[in-house]
Amino acid sequence: MAVATKTFLARVEVTLKLTVNDPQGNTVKGALASLGFDGVSAVRVGKHMEIRLTAEGAAEAERRVEEMCRQLLANPVIEQYRFTIESAEG
Amino acid sequence: MAVATKTFLARVEVTLKLTVNDPQGNTVKGALASLGFDGVSAVRVGKHMEIRLTAEGAAEAERRVEEMCRQLLANPVIEQYRFTIESAEG
Repeated sequence: MAVATKTFLARVEVTLKLTVNDPQGNTVKGALASLGFDGVSAVRVGKHMEIRLTAEGAAEAERRVEEMCRQLLANPVIEQYRFTIESAEG
Repeated sequence: MAVATKTFLARVEVTLKLTVNDPQGNTVKGALASLGFDGVSAVRVGKHMEIRLTAEGAAEAERRVEEMCRQLLANPVIEQYRFTIESAEG
């Protein structure tokens, strides 16, 4: 008998570790200043990914997304990641 | 007398509109499949930005980040954005 699966949406944020220089963020910060936005003390730029996947439950979805981050989505030498899992049924 | 300001952290997500083709997301989806992650039906890739700014209050911070998105952070023709504001005091 086939196991019933549910659809989940994972929202993954991959950002450079705080100790790693972020030239893209610095460029955005400079651009904001040149547009007249003062009071901006720091900008960090990272990746945002939305992954729609099927799994037997939220715990299994979380385990698989964690594994995706480790194997492909983030570079653990310079990046950190965090994600949320929500049901995407219906 | 100077007006007291507080520090806020804005987390901005900029993603391609759903009607816009996302080749980077499709590439990640294909890479996940080739690594053996099945059950992934869609991947969308966007930008994640963390902006630290000072403002008189959360409402003013929100208004300014909205304006930053319109003027610089997102391309309204093909991208949509959403953000959260949280206090970054202490």
